[in-house]
Amino acid sequence: MTNYSPTPLLDQVSRPSDLKNLNDTQLVTLAEELRTETISAVSETGGHLGAGLGVIELTVALHAVFDAPRDKIIWDVGHQCYPHKILTERRDRIRTLRMKDGLSGFTKRAESPYDPFGAAHSSTSISAALGFTMARELGGFIPEGLGDAIAVIGDGAMTAGMAFEAMNNVGHLKKRIIVILNDNEMSIAPPVGALSKYLSRLYSERPYQELKTVTKNAVSLLPEPFRNSAKRAKDLLKGMTIGGTLFEELGFSYIGPIDGHDVTELLAILRTVRIRATGPVLIHTLTTKGKGYVPAENARDKGHATARFDVLTGEQKKAKSNTPSYTKVFAESLTKEAKIDDKICAITAAMPDGTGLNFFAEQFPHRCFDVGIAEQHGVTFAAGLAAGGMKPFCAIYSTFLQRGYDQVVHDVAIQGLPVRFAIDRAGLVGADGATHAGSFDIAYLSNLPGFTVMAAADEAELVHLVATAAAHNEGPIAFRFPRGEGVGTTMPERGQPVPIGKGRIVRKGKDIAILSFGARLQEVLNACDSLGTQGIKPTIADARFSKPLDRDLILKLSKTHDALMTIEEGAIGGFGSHVAQLLADEGVFDDGLKYRSMVLPDVFVNQANPADMYAVACMNAPDIEAKVLNLLHSQKTK
Amino acid sequence: MTNYSPTPLLDQVSRPSDLKNLNDTQLVTLAEELRTETISAVSETGGHLGAGLGVIELTVALHAVFDAPRDKIIWDVGHQCYPHKILTERRDRIRTLRMKDGLSGFTKRAESPYDPFGAAHSSTSISAALGFTMARELGGFIPEGLGDAIAVIGDGAMTAGMAFEAMNNVGHLKKRIIVILNDNEMSIAPPVGALSKYLSRLYSERPYQELKTVTKNAVSLLPEPFRNSAKRAKDLLKGMTIGGTLFEELGFSYIGPIDGHDVTELLAILRTVRIRATGPVLIHTLTTKGKGYVPAENARDKGHATARFDVLTGEQKKAKSNTPSYTKVFAESLTKEAKIDDKICAITAAMPDGTGLNFFAEQFPHRCFDVGIAEQHGVTFAAGLAAGGMKPFCAIYSTFLQRGYDQVVHDVAIQGLPVRFAIDRAGLVGADGATHAGSFDIAYLSNLPGFTVMAAADEAELVHLVATAAAHNEGPIAFRFPRGEGVGTTMPERGQPVPIGKGRIVRKGKDIAILSFGARLQEVLNACDSLGTQGIKPTIADARFSKPLDRDLILKLSKTHDALMTIEEGAIGGFGSHVAQLLADEGVFDDGLKYRSMVLPDVFVNQANPADMYAVACMNAPDIEAKVLNLLHSQKTK
Repeated sequence: MTNYSPTPLLDQVSRPSDLKNLNDTQLVTLAEELRTETISAVSETGGHLGAGLGVIELTVALHAVFDAPRDKIIWDVGHQCYPHKILTERRDRIRTLRMKDGLSGFTKRAESPYDPFGAAHSSTSISAALGFTMARELGGFIPEGLGDAIAVIGDGAMTAGMAFEAMNNVGHLKKRIIVILNDNEMSIAPPVGALSKYLSRLYSERPYQELKTVTKNAVSLLPEPFRNSAKRAKDLLKGMTIGGTLFEELGFSYIGPIDGHDVTELLAILRTVRIRATGPVLIHTLTTKGKGYVPAENARDKGHATARFDVLTGEQKKAKSNTPSYTKVFAESLTKEAKIDDKICAITAAMPDGTGLNFFAEQFPHRCFDVGIAEQHGVTFAAGLAAGGMKPFCAIYSTFLQRGYDQVVHDVAIQGLPVRFAIDRAGLVGADGATHAGSFDIAYLSNLPGFTVMAAADEAELVHLVATAAAHNEGPIAFRFPRGEGVGTTMPERGQPVPIGKGRIVRKGKDIAILSFGARLQEVLNACDSLGTQGIKPTIADARFSKPLDRDLILKLSKTHDALMTIEEGAIGGFGSHVAQLLADEGVFDDGLKYRSMVLPDVFVNQANPADMYAVACMNAPDIEAKVLNLLHSQKTK
Repeated sequence: MTNYSPTPLLDQVSRPSDLKNLNDTQLVTLAEELRTETISAVSETGGHLGAGLGVIELTVALHAVFDAPRDKIIWDVGHQCYPHKILTERRDRIRTLRMKDGLSGFTKRAESPYDPFGAAHSSTSISAALGFTMARELGGFIPEGLGDAIAVIGDGAMTAGMAFEAMNNVGHLKKRIIVILNDNEMSIAPPVGALSKYLSRLYSERPYQELKTVTKNAVSLLPEPFRNSAKRAKDLLKGMTIGGTLFEELGFSYIGPIDGHDVTELLAILRTVRIRATGPVLIHTLTTKGKGYVPAENARDKGHATARFDVLTGEQKKAKSNTPSYTKVFAESLTKEAKIDDKICAITAAMPDGTGLNFFAEQFPHRCFDVGIAEQHGVTFAAGLAAGGMKPFCAIYSTFLQRGYDQVVHDVAIQGLPVRFAIDRAGLVGADGATHAGSFDIAYLSNLPGFTVMAAADEAELVHLVATAAAHNEGPIAFRFPRGEGVGTTMPERGQPVPIGKGRIVRKGKDIAILSFGARLQEVLNACDSLGTQGIKPTIADARFSKPLDRDLILKLSKTHDALMTIEEGAIGGFGSHVAQLLADEGVFDDGLKYRSMVLPDVFVNQANPADMYAVACMNAPDIEAKVLNLLHSQKTK
């Protein structure tokens, strides 16, 4: 770990303005040093390696040519920003990436003025860049000033409808704005969709474009000496299909494709654009994810996300787990169900590995659909499949399902179509931080008429909930489960559908009942083990359903206990709120009931490991224990 | 009203299969009769006239060539479906359109098997069509069978990212699917965006395409005799810019543009496509919104939505109101604020008229942005404007803001950017029915850390909330207000910012306190007037904020009254749930409090006038009165 390679040039750079002192040859060398430093840092922290390595040269060139933070360099998704962070006053903290109290693994406004617009979800950068651009036009004021806005967006992110909406608006407003399409044919998974094929065609027939042969619409951008030769080149190409039309049709000047790892070429293009651009420009760069680090380049996912690793061998230092991940349990359970029901199919939005559907797809390639980064379409496509008599499982992380919320309401819920939502990464998720937390799905699904909403208390429960969803064909149904490994419980051979709207008593006790929805159950059990040593034996129930509620169970618990507490891995408005509404409606509060609802706190919890994040949220076993004691204590003083 | 024109051919048609008995000449005549019937029906019911008139010929041609309900004709948005309903066993009820217990103003699965996929929000049709197509490929079974899937989508709807996501996926899967681009250069407002300009270019240089000159990729679709002449035509056009490239790049065979009002031409094209298509086909038709009815064609909005009207003159029969609409109050208030603060700007997603921003744009054209049907981009664009020092007001209906939910969470809330959300059409909205109800925004916004969420109790309050939002620059803030006219209260000359997180006592009373959030306040006052005659004088408070809650007010009310009731025009999980959480956390329920929360019921409420819809929801004055009496009665028997 301490065997750092020398980085003499990088050592002179602590902020982008320092790059102005380096000549182009030095900038080429700087890029290599930046690559070394990035690999070294991520080997210690883990994180998104491949994306950053793909934009090393682009990062150097952008900061050498533009003036951040006055110019707004907006990294789409943001997981490729580690080299950017190293160049922007954060090298001293780069080995705290994604750690508690450390640097975020994404761009983050609160962290640095060099991160003008934070990200983590994809495809927002062009919209944000247009916002900065129009703010400048309208006389907006911020301390850093408002210069150029540059969005750097991957080919995968470009498939999201939001990026198209933004391009459509940019082309309409016609203001100077720079979009760099970082085309590495690899977002997280290999790319899908017609756009991807289109991009490939743009460069498959011809090698990299020299500066002098950039396409016709970009000719006006070029310095005089180049302009004439470009025109000649254009004449030579007459009759050929010239790339870029799709972007040109939308009002952009298209430049490319160019080699995104050639610093000199990038500097020339960016300087030209900076001097000459008067309207929207799209620069199409070709890069290699994981570039310059053999283990990443050779990896199936191009080193997309990695644990800590040995720099020399690339070997990752992962703690072995004896329990399967929830994701794997979901994928295996769904595959089992699909073997006996040929109507089951699955949809992922560019996350076949993350959702485990790659496993499903190996068995049933024709019944698995990767729609690209396109949650809106994915949800309605699933609704169409359901309307056509299929049993679609739409596997989307909680945080990304927010992208398809209207489609969940309008196309699924209102029509009562039996789409199954498999919601992974429910609750707090660790190193990815607040942007990836699955906090709101319980609330935003449980108030939809006709929806059934379930949560898995452990990995065995998840098996049964998959079976329940497969069997439930009467309307939409969702089941949520957390990131990470299960609790090590005994696994059933096959899932058995559970009765809709029925919870289960886990332990019988007295005085206080704890009603858990989802995977906090283990913490509840731990808390109650500790309480047991103090002579306190709460009743513990696993609600299984936030909708429909198990009315009988809840009302019975409220009648037979002095206190009732709910807990869920979600924000206010979800399970606990539905229970409170039931208790109020039934007049249970009229005569008094000690009722508490433990939900995620009213803050965006910063990254740490999930246990630490739940500590911030006051939702671990000691917090539950303290809450119970406090509640019972207040009883005694009554 | 009774002066119906004769429709001898239409009278023979009660279902699409009846069209098979008519020859092409008769189909041309049928279209004219269908137009007459559509105008006549809408003159009695009001509704979306222009869109239906624009697709009369297309409706006839589609049903003549394809076999619904086996073939799935999916009307995007669905507001152009009245002629379709007339041809599909619903002519006898067509004069109940948009009325209580009548036909929906949109396509609706629950209404007819001829509506294979309901709609109301835009841009979902291609996704749904792909779902049906893949269901067919995978052996899905439904009683109607699975034939061809045809999506009919407007040029405005095509600008939404969702449509692009779907096209991208269609082009990838390469299955036979038919998309009809109904290009009328007018979605609701005149179109904006680069795509619109692109579509215009497709036909501006050349007139309608004859069948024999459809573009190169479509040549293979043509019958032999046409194919050769098409090839000749293609040769003739060599060197010209041939339209359709954007769609062709995405993997579609492009046919067009063709005259969407020429039944014979449409029949020929559709028959050819039906026989020959093997992959995705896009047929570009040019139509005129409001076609064939002069008052609609001449109207600024092309008869988009109309009240009942006189067929001869086109004069609309609108009841005059003495009170201004909330929309107008919002627009005027915002314009006043913008006059004294040049950082205020506004964003609409293709609804300048509906949101009132057309009024704002007249005063401040450069500070008003119509981004097209692009809520996702619109929200993040607003976030970018805020990050650039502007004060953006993002004016989006409650139901459509669902489309930008992830952007609200990820780009606005997590970053704490001061975007102002002006949420019109909050609560139940009347004739547009369940799909347009603004039911969920209180819940889905109030659980976002750092958000401020307000609701206007009346139109004077709205003025103050606009001022409050303008003044609040510390983070995101939203204010919601209902559809329709205000209550006739005295209007302030200018808005005064109200203190954040503070409600107000409206009437002091005893025994029971009613805490109203939003525009149910008038019903609460009416209920309490009636209760007053029975000697019951509740305290009434206007909460103004669902976040942050006025803790002091709520706890004081709970301490000084035996019962506390909340009411809001939203679903469970919102204001009442936040109040319940507060009361639980503070131990108020421990010793007993009669607490009730009146929220929208757990059903999607069908269209009727808003008062009737709220009657179904049990949220009108009599319902409130009954609830209070019931609550006080239960107290006396204690």
